[in-house]
Formats: sequence, structure tokens, C-alpha cells
Amino acid sequence: MANKKITSRDLDFAQWYTDVVNAAHLSSYSKVKGCLVIEPNGYAIWEKMQSTLDKMFKETGHKNVYMPVLIPESLMQKEGELIEGFAPEAAWVTIGGSKELEEKMCIRPTSETLFSDYYSNVVKSYRDLPLKYNQWANVMRWEKETRPFLRSREFLWQEGHTVHATAAEAEAETKNMLGVYEKFFRDYLAIPVITGRKTEKEKFAGAEYTLTVEALMYNGVSLQSGTSHYFGQKFSKAYDIKFLNKDNNWEYAYQTSWGVTTRMIGALIMVHSDDDGLVLPPNIAPLQVRIIPIGDDPEIANLAENYEKTLQKAGISAEIDKTERSPGFKFAEAEVLGVPVRIEIGKRDLENGQITLARRDTKEKFQISKDANVVREVENLLTAIQGNLLARATARRDKMTYFVKTLEEFEKTMNTTPGFVHADWCGNPECEARIKEIRGTKSRCIDEHAPLITGKCVVCGKPAKHHVIWGIQY
Amino acid sequence: MANKKITSRDLDFAQWYTDVVNAAHLSSYSKVKGCLVIEPNGYAIWEKMQSTLDKMFKETGHKNVYMPVLIPESLMQKEGELIEGFAPEAAWVTIGGSKELEEKMCIRPTSETLFSDYYSNVVKSYRDLPLKYNQWANVMRWEKETRPFLRSREFLWQEGHTVHATAAEAEAETKNMLGVYEKFFRDYLAIPVITGRKTEKEKFAGAEYTLTVEALMYNGVSLQSGTSHYFGQKFSKAYDIKFLNKDNNWEYAYQTSWGVTTRMIGALIMVHSDDDGLVLPPNIAPLQVRIIPIGDDPEIANLAENYEKTLQKAGISAEIDKTERSPGFKFAEAEVLGVPVRIEIGKRDLENGQITLARRDTKEKFQISKDANVVREVENLLTAIQGNLLARATARRDKMTYFVKTLEEFEKTMNTTPGFVHADWCGNPECEARIKEIRGTKSRCIDEHAPLITGKCVVCGKPAKHHVIWGIQY
Repeated sequence: MANKKITSRDLDFAQWYTDVVNAAHLSSYSKVKGCLVIEPNGYAIWEKMQSTLDKMFKETGHKNVYMPVLIPESLMQKEGELIEGFAPEAAWVTIGGSKELEEKMCIRPTSETLFSDYYSNVVKSYRDLPLKYNQWANVMRWEKETRPFLRSREFLWQEGHTVHATAAEAEAETKNMLGVYEKFFRDYLAIPVITGRKTEKEKFAGAEYTLTVEALMYNGVSLQSGTSHYFGQKFSKAYDIKFLNKDNNWEYAYQTSWGVTTRMIGALIMVHSDDDGLVLPPNIAPLQVRIIPIGDDPEIANLAENYEKTLQKAGISAEIDKTERSPGFKFAEAEVLGVPVRIEIGKRDLENGQITLARRDTKEKFQISKDANVVREVENLLTAIQGNLLARATARRDKMTYFVKTLEEFEKTMNTTPGFVHADWCGNPECEARIKEIRGTKSRCIDEHAPLITGKCVVCGKPAKHHVIWGIQY
Repeated sequence: MANKKITSRDLDFAQWYTDVVNAAHLSSYSKVKGCLVIEPNGYAIWEKMQSTLDKMFKETGHKNVYMPVLIPESLMQKEGELIEGFAPEAAWVTIGGSKELEEKMCIRPTSETLFSDYYSNVVKSYRDLPLKYNQWANVMRWEKETRPFLRSREFLWQEGHTVHATAAEAEAETKNMLGVYEKFFRDYLAIPVITGRKTEKEKFAGAEYTLTVEALMYNGVSLQSGTSHYFGQKFSKAYDIKFLNKDNNWEYAYQTSWGVTTRMIGALIMVHSDDDGLVLPPNIAPLQVRIIPIGDDPEIANLAENYEKTLQKAGISAEIDKTERSPGFKFAEAEVLGVPVRIEIGKRDLENGQITLARRDTKEKFQISKDANVVREVENLLTAIQGNLLARATARRDKMTYFVKTLEEFEKTMNTTPGFVHADWCGNPECEARIKEIRGTKSRCIDEHAPLITGKCVVCGKPAKHHVIWGIQY
């Protein structure tokens, strides 16, 4: 029986999404238009994402720093494309300490400017390089339409910014960090992504090129989920980041940046969750096991305490629901919150020497002996759930992946069963614009490794340059 | 031999502080006036503070959330004292998305307003209470004079905000969180603090009362290092946070807030550090042991790798300095960064079957057998250093603590050997103002447990109400 507060996903996907966010208490709107309150259940997911990624970043040689939240207009303007890209959606501080500022400052929409300014002060020699820094921060982009986690005026993210002595090393960094994201999505979020290079039109303002990880939501809509940019010397020339190279000549440095955001929480919802609420992959779930004692038998309470202790000792996050509510209510709540495994301990089961395990992904329940090795049973189940979610999402993604040869086929697909559409492209922005007329479809990325499909542009028929994956986007 | 880049602490304390910040690469100024870049070495200390405190907060039942960075003016104005207190130093956003905003919004100087607005939406019944939330965030206060970590326009902090069904429970929370801070300062930062209640003049705008932890710096100047506020129903009445109590009557809720900031990094410097740079207590040091192989003997390299692995396995943070610089340079760098323990492995020592351990706090060096239980040796040393730093800081604090009976004594003390001055006070703000004429001395806190000293106000001679601790402040 589906949760009554949640609209059916197949009936009204947008409403379903909002209902899941509300029912699981992930976030709520605030008095600040377009800005979210991230509630404890939502923030706990973000903390798990943060700690996991932070470890991956540190293992790949990155260090954390913190840059100011404000950027003076003049500093922002040094790199022309960047300011053009972000000025329309900037929020500007014009008054500080009761006085009109001499120069207005914007709340960071991204921090290439501040990092570059800092790097221009500290980079002197090739011996100082590379500098591989990251920051966890809030950023602001004055969006018109907002949706919880997917698009809001303020959001939380990490932004890596690195400087290198050679183009090759910076390009390797750009690629490696894309790999870190791909791995994180696969191994933790259980989301299969496609990766590739953005077209000129879709790349980040100021980048030489942008690599991207793109995920497909349950309804066939694409979500740009993380990007890794190669800047070459664009910023180093604008911000004067020079170093003495090994030949003792001054050279402009090579830079990258890369980021993922709280938007990933939206992806988790739209890829895995269902009409009963959140479904969280065990590797990212803040709580992996909820233990629900049924009735107030002291033997049951003892058993619950034992399981909790044993599981926690084994590094599994487990918690007894000690609230005074009905078992049915407790089951439904564990479901709506997406807790991967539920252990139910009831009198009847216990008379048979058993307890019940319930998995959130398939909603199956089964009994095990109360004396079983509960750590092993739960670990196996968590692994199975993690694997099943990835397999399920991959199968769905594959089912919604199409290879089209003509514009008619393209239009028919997007108008009936949208998804990732593979089609050849000549590289002409006009053909890209023509495709945008189909329900706003944009290029997700160029797959640089896949062979061409027909060899001809799906729009104009001229010789194709790229195998492109297209999609409707959030 | 002291670090050449660092001015002597006894010669020019302010310059010494700046020199330590720079030499240890903790932070640097940015193009944004009054805002810091927190560099990797500084941020790593903050991360250690964060993870330690976050664990303590969670163990005491708190959950993390995230509130918007902007506060609409109208929301800010609901509680009169708060806006009065913070308006003069607010930074205001007046333009968003290229348009003048209908209502200006300030960058949060603190988030009582947003938390209260949120709580007014979600608190309905005593069953919902308590709500014990915290957030890690950046805040902004448009200060005129700034100093790295001690006072800057933007800084990082945590702010806990809780709602309770009874005054007693909220007051207990206010006190408990002060206790958490006191413990954190003592057990991790090795800083002995005094605690007590702020006077009406010094309390937080909008609070019923403010409890504080105050630390004494090497030069006798006080640093307000953390505060815990009891709001009673002030904010709940202004923001309409009502709940149905157990008697089924509507009642305004009781609130608290409490916070500590990146200022604690400044305290670490000014309490423990010396003319050779940072001195970090082992319990808060991002790196506890630096292993320095001298020369490129393969036996030495192997030994270094072994120690590193063994120490890391035991949960000690250890790292080999593999850079190509002279041993002397490496020793000095480990010192300036405040690494508590250095392991030096050199050919001569090794011929005697020995290695050298150096401790940062006392600069003592001694030899141990290369086959000693290095984990135990290092653990003992780290414990000894942690203990010594606390003992040293406590002895210094005690030496700079004075009990005075007359205003003449008070003035003489502050003009020669400032520190924590204990003196009785009648409670009259005019007497408090008179004391401020002595080098800006302010009341640090009222010690509610200490007996009166003379029973008479140190200024006016009238009957005293409070035993107050006074100090010059940062």
C-alpha cells in the first residue's frame, strides 16, 4: 500500500517528487524566495556525500581551503566569458556597515576568480606546482524557477580548483576527477552515468572544455550531475598566474575546476525512490538499519539492544525506533525515509525463534533465526540492495537509451518515451539549435569513444563529426 | 634558534601573531577587504575542530541542518534587540538577477531569525520538542578593524539553535553546551577557560542571558571564545513559535543558541605558540608526527616507511617528509607548522641502533632504540605534550589572575601586567563604564559560584552584587 501523502510517480512525476521531499522531511522552503532550508534528514544525506567524496579527494592528493563568499565586481570582470555567463544571475551586495560600497560585490556563483587571484600571489616556480585545492561552500545563482535540490538560488557544493605546470597534467586532472565522480555515482549513489565532453554551447563559461557526468531520471529526463573543466591558460592569463618553468622561463599556468552539488540528493530521489517514499542506497544512507521492537516485552527490548550494539560495532549504522507509536506507523516511517533494512522483532516470530528482515528496495520480508549471525545477514542484505539498485537503474537507463538515424525518429522518441538519444551531429550550432526545438532537448555530451552511427548529421545530413547523446534536462 | 621570519613574541606581540599566521601559511588576505583566504594549513585545523565538535554535538542529541545565507530585512526586524545589535554591521544584497530587489536582504550575521521562522512552521505540539539543531556555516559582520581569525568580516562557525517545551530544559541545554565547549577547550585545545554569565551590557542582543567561555592569551589579553545563550520566550514571541503543551494549552516555546568560530585558531596561536611558530596540541593537530629521513640510505627509507605505516595503523596521523630539502630546513618547517612530534632517522644514530624523537612544545630531543615500540613511545609523548601544554597555559593563566580590592589596584594591574582581574561589582552599568576607561577593560563574566571578595563595588564602594572577572579583550 503506497504512502497516502505521496502522489503516484507514474501519475504526476513532478508532484511525486515534491511529495517525497516533503514526506521524508528533506527540505522545506524558507521566507527567502528560492532558498531552501535543508532539514536534518536531507542534510544527513549531504554529510554522507561530503565525507565520502572528501576522502576520495584527499586520497587523490587534494587539500581543503576556504575563499571569501564575496567577489568584487572588478575581480569578477577579469575573465570576460565568466562574467558574461554569470552576471545575469548574480546577487550583489551594495551596502556594508550602513554605507554604500565603493564597489559592489557579488555573492560567489563559483570561485574561479578568487582562486585565481590567490594563485597569482602564491605561484612562483614549477616547484610550487601542482596546487590541488578544494572547497566546500555555499554558492548563489539568482534562478527564476526553483525546485528543491534540483535548482535553487543558494545551494551547497564542492569546487575543486587546481593549478599545474603543464597542459598534460591539468588535462589528466580534469579526466581523473571526472573518474572520481563516475565512481562515486556508481559505487555509492548506485547511479550509472554517462560521461563525455560538452559541446561549445553547453560548456562552462571560461573553460577550454567541460567534461560531464549525466544521469537519467525515472521519467527519462537527464540531469547534469557533475562537471570537470579544463581551463588551459584562460584564467592564468586573465589573472596573471605565472611561474618559472624548469627552463627558467616565465610561463602561464594550466588550471582545472570541478564540482558536484546538493543536486545529487535530487538525483537519488528521481532515480531510486518510489510511491512509498525515499529509497536510499545503503552506501549513502545515513541510517542503514532501523530496528523495530513490536510490543513492550523485555525479551524483545533486550534483543533489540543486542542487535543494535552488535551492528554498530561492525560499523553498520543501526538504530532502534523507541518512539511510542504503532508498529504499522513505524514501518511506514522507515519506508518513507528510505532506510535500506528494517529488523522487526515481534512476539509471534520470536515464539518460533525468529525475527523478520525487510528490505526497502523490493519490499520483500523474510525470517531468520533470532540467533543467526545478524551482522553477516545484514551485510549481505545491504550488499544485495546496493547491487540491485544499481542494476535496476542501469536496466532502466538502457531501456531508455535510443540510437536514432533521422530527425523524425528523434522527434518521435522524445515526444513519446524520452531518454538518452544517441545521434550523429555535424558540429554546427544551428543543427544543435534545431534539436532544441524538440521539447528543449540539449546535447548532454559528445561521446568521444563511440563510433559514429550513420556518419551523417541527424539534422542536416552533412558529414557528422560527433557521436552525441541528447536529452531533455532539468 | 628562533625562526628568522618571526618577530619575537615578547618584543611585539601583534607582529609576532601576524608572522606566525604567515610563516605557518594559515591564512592570507584576499582582494575582498577584511575577508580571509583560509589556506590548507589553517583549514586543516578547522576541519579537526569541526569533526571533533560535531561528534560531541551528535553525542548530545543534536542534528545538523542548513539555513539560507540571506535574511530578508522584514524577518530580521521582528526581534527588536537583535536587529539593533546587528544592523550597523550588516552587509545587504540589494540587486539579484540584474534587478533591484523589492526588499533588501542581509548576509546572515547569525541565524536566530531563520531558525525561529522555521521552528514557527514545524513546532505544533510538546511531542515535537525538543528540536536540537546545529549548522556549520559562514557568517558576515562588517567589522572595521580586522585581524586574521580573531576578527574578520566573514568567518566560519557553528551555530546551535534549540527549542524546548520548558524553561528548565532550555536552561539546562544552555548550560550543557557551555560544558561541551569548556571540555573541548580543555581536552582538545589544551586551553583552560573561565566560564560564567555575561553582564547585561555584554550579553548577546536578544538573549535573556549569555554564558561564555573566556580564554587568556599569552599577553594577558582575554578572548571571548564561545557563547551559549538562553532566549527564554523572546524569539518565540517575536516569531510566533507556539506549541500545545501537555495540558492542551498553547504556550510559547523556550529557545537557546550557542556558537564557536574560526577565532579558536587565533586562540591556539596566542596561547601555545612561540618564536619558532605554531605549537599545536596533539589532540587538535592535523598532523601529529612528521618523520624525517636524513640522507638517502635505503635502510633509513625503509625504516621511515615502517614507522609511518605502524603509526597510521594505530590511528596516529604521521607523514614522511619526502621533499628534497636539507634536514635543517625540514626540522624548521615541522616546527613552524607546530607538528607535535618529529622522528629523525639519521645514519649516525642508526649505527648505535637508535632514532631521535623531538617534541615541539619543549624542543627537547632524545634517542630511543630503533626497535622500540614506536607506537607506545609516540603515544606517550603525545599524551605528555597535550598535558604539558594545558599545564603550562593553566600556570600562566593563574599567574596572570588577580584579585583586586580597589580601583587603584585595578588600574595599576591593567597598566602593568594585564590578565583576568577579579573584582566585586554593584551591578550598576555606570561602574562598568568607569572600568572601561582602564584600557578598554570589559567584564568577561560574572562568576556566579565564587564568593564576593570585599563585598563592596570596586568602583563606587556600594554593596556588591557580583564577583566579576574583568579583562582587556580582543
